[in-house]
Amino acid sequence: MPNSMHTGSFQWMKSVNKSTILNVIRLQGPIARAEIAKVTRLTPPTVTNIVAELLYENMVLESDLGKSTGGRKPILLKINASAFQVVGVHAGEKQVRVISANLNGKIGKNVQLPIREGISSVQYLCLIKEAVRQVLKRDEKKGPPLLGIGVGVFGWMDEKCGPSLSSISHELEQTFGVPVEIESDIRALAMGESWFGQGKGVSDFICVHTGCHVKAGLIMNDRLIQGHSLIAGALGHMVVDVKGPSCRCGNHGCLEAFASTPGMMAHIQERLEKGEDSLLLRYRDTQRLNLPSVLKAAELGDRLSLDILSGTGRLLGVGLANLVHLLNPSKIILSGDVVTAGPVLWSSLRKEVERRTQGISKNDVQIVLSELGVHAREMGSLALILKRLFEPHAVDS
Amino acid sequence: MPNSMHTGSFQWMKSVNKSTILNVIRLQGPIARAEIAKVTRLTPPTVTNIVAELLYENMVLESDLGKSTGGRKPILLKINASAFQVVGVHAGEKQVRVISANLNGKIGKNVQLPIREGISSVQYLCLIKEAVRQVLKRDEKKGPPLLGIGVGVFGWMDEKCGPSLSSISHELEQTFGVPVEIESDIRALAMGESWFGQGKGVSDFICVHTGCHVKAGLIMNDRLIQGHSLIAGALGHMVVDVKGPSCRCGNHGCLEAFASTPGMMAHIQERLEKGEDSLLLRYRDTQRLNLPSVLKAAELGDRLSLDILSGTGRLLGVGLANLVHLLNPSKIILSGDVVTAGPVLWSSLRKEVERRTQGISKNDVQIVLSELGVHAREMGSLALILKRLFEPHAVDS
Repeated sequence: MPNSMHTGSFQWMKSVNKSTILNVIRLQGPIARAEIAKVTRLTPPTVTNIVAELLYENMVLESDLGKSTGGRKPILLKINASAFQVVGVHAGEKQVRVISANLNGKIGKNVQLPIREGISSVQYLCLIKEAVRQVLKRDEKKGPPLLGIGVGVFGWMDEKCGPSLSSISHELEQTFGVPVEIESDIRALAMGESWFGQGKGVSDFICVHTGCHVKAGLIMNDRLIQGHSLIAGALGHMVVDVKGPSCRCGNHGCLEAFASTPGMMAHIQERLEKGEDSLLLRYRDTQRLNLPSVLKAAELGDRLSLDILSGTGRLLGVGLANLVHLLNPSKIILSGDVVTAGPVLWSSLRKEVERRTQGISKNDVQIVLSELGVHAREMGSLALILKRLFEPHAVDS
Repeated sequence: MPNSMHTGSFQWMKSVNKSTILNVIRLQGPIARAEIAKVTRLTPPTVTNIVAELLYENMVLESDLGKSTGGRKPILLKINASAFQVVGVHAGEKQVRVISANLNGKIGKNVQLPIREGISSVQYLCLIKEAVRQVLKRDEKKGPPLLGIGVGVFGWMDEKCGPSLSSISHELEQTFGVPVEIESDIRALAMGESWFGQGKGVSDFICVHTGCHVKAGLIMNDRLIQGHSLIAGALGHMVVDVKGPSCRCGNHGCLEAFASTPGMMAHIQERLEKGEDSLLLRYRDTQRLNLPSVLKAAELGDRLSLDILSGTGRLLGVGLANLVHLLNPSKIILSGDVVTAGPVLWSSLRKEVERRTQGISKNDVQIVLSELGVHAREMGSLALILKRLFEPHAVDS
């Protein structure tokens, strides 16, 4: 099979009918040709021709025989998921995390490389390439052909603080000879929930990720909200306390000033400095004042820790209630260190959302935790490239 | 022409090609058949056939001759805007406001009927029908045939507090024999800005209307955001001051508790009761404590009035900055009593948005006042029905 075939697969998908058929096989397979014709309303000869192409390209497989409806048993088709691989990259602030997976999103290998401080933009790009290379060659034997790479980037970088998005995309395309899809990490995460997770089949939902930052990935009317200049989703800079403390962004009373890990630690530090007694006193001014130590102290009944956790939950609850009022999503999917920080925070968050959305039926919005696991962000990046393969016209339109 | 034709026009628009051609004539007319074929990539015979239908239905007109490119001068086509009329209804809290207009949105007549307190849902529906009847028969001579009615409703009513949306829509369709499009008033307003106003050709913008309530009509990716249960846009219930005063919704620190006219008046009342000196003292506890009297007092240098106006501007500015961070619109279009309340409020609003969106370039978001005028809301309702006529597939999809 010529190497150009991989890129070609994407080119060929530019035929609406072909990508439609491929997607029907993905969603409803194993499925017979006659059934595909019925579902897609294409003529049987068209379906037969396109399926022949897909078989030739190794994208689909003939599998078991289906049930006969009178004549001979029809041959069923399914995606040849393991014949190709795709790669998902999370280009983060502290780590580059990469996974490889088959076309069903089943994870093969994973690589994490740490990013040392003060790294140049060229070095950062090299690190991404190195991590992709490692994941592709992890077990020293050649894996199935690579179809494409999805990348989620932690911030919209400019030349000052990192390589530009277009340079990452271009470099990876050149180096690996496959199409690359790139997005902000939070929007990639939302795509991941939409493709693999709790956002599957949901038209209006919001992913909220809380850690060093508080970000929202918005899917409304089945489409990602990117915003005019591609910076939508800065939930952390939503002001919830107009008289509140200053935030690193220059604003005051931002959600992130309370509900991110740095925000929480700053509040603890401040209260310790004011002389408040706490199990956390021993960590004052050290790196060990972190979320795990706060959680541990809270478990031991430390009042300051409990206070900070429930306060953070309340503030996040206010932020989520604001999203509910403004955007009326049917689901909010939470992930990240802060929201997974145990029952104290979680229960105060839930209570606050309920308290602040009284006019709205509980059936109208579900608040859930992400179930995508440790590779959630890389899976989001996978979803970017899988969507381009299977639903190119949904992406373009 | 048979009466069923009017409804039929909409049915016929179900042909994608036909509505595409009609919309090209609307946007680019006067335009020649050959040019339409070029723009739409349809074959000249298809264009000729469909144009013949549109001429027969009186939807388009042959107008001036165009420039010759060698042969005889081509005949140009344009929308026969005055051959039909459409009606826009704003079903408000205190008034039912109705306009009639031609297909270009040029307003013909207008009617406003007051709504008395405690009106039943059946009476409200009758009032809407009466207002439509009046606008259609205002000058006692029969106007051009009615093509459809658009309705914007001030709240999502249920049987308790008003007729349901589907009952309004059904009743009007039955009574007037034409298609009816219905939406919340703020979303109709956003459609109006998109069709006639400063949202024309803008993919991501937000209309903010402030008066008795504070509402947002969101257009993202060229589509209206309705939300899962059609209640998106309750900007007034976004919390901006977590420790703030209670709001009528049961929540605390909502934008609406400060930045709506009732919110402003409540704050003034409170400060007067605390003994603050002000020109407004004479209106204390009367109906005459209203926005015009506050504006007048502010002009005379009244400190309380100036304070309330700039405070309201600041709070609204915080709300708009939150929208900018979360949704990254390229434009925010403001309307309603509060934001049009003169330079004091406006300048403090502008300053606050700038102060709170420091990381974002000024070119990335324009904050403007609506220019649709006194019939803005009715024009929004017109836009609903015009969009269904000219872009039915954009609405459906």
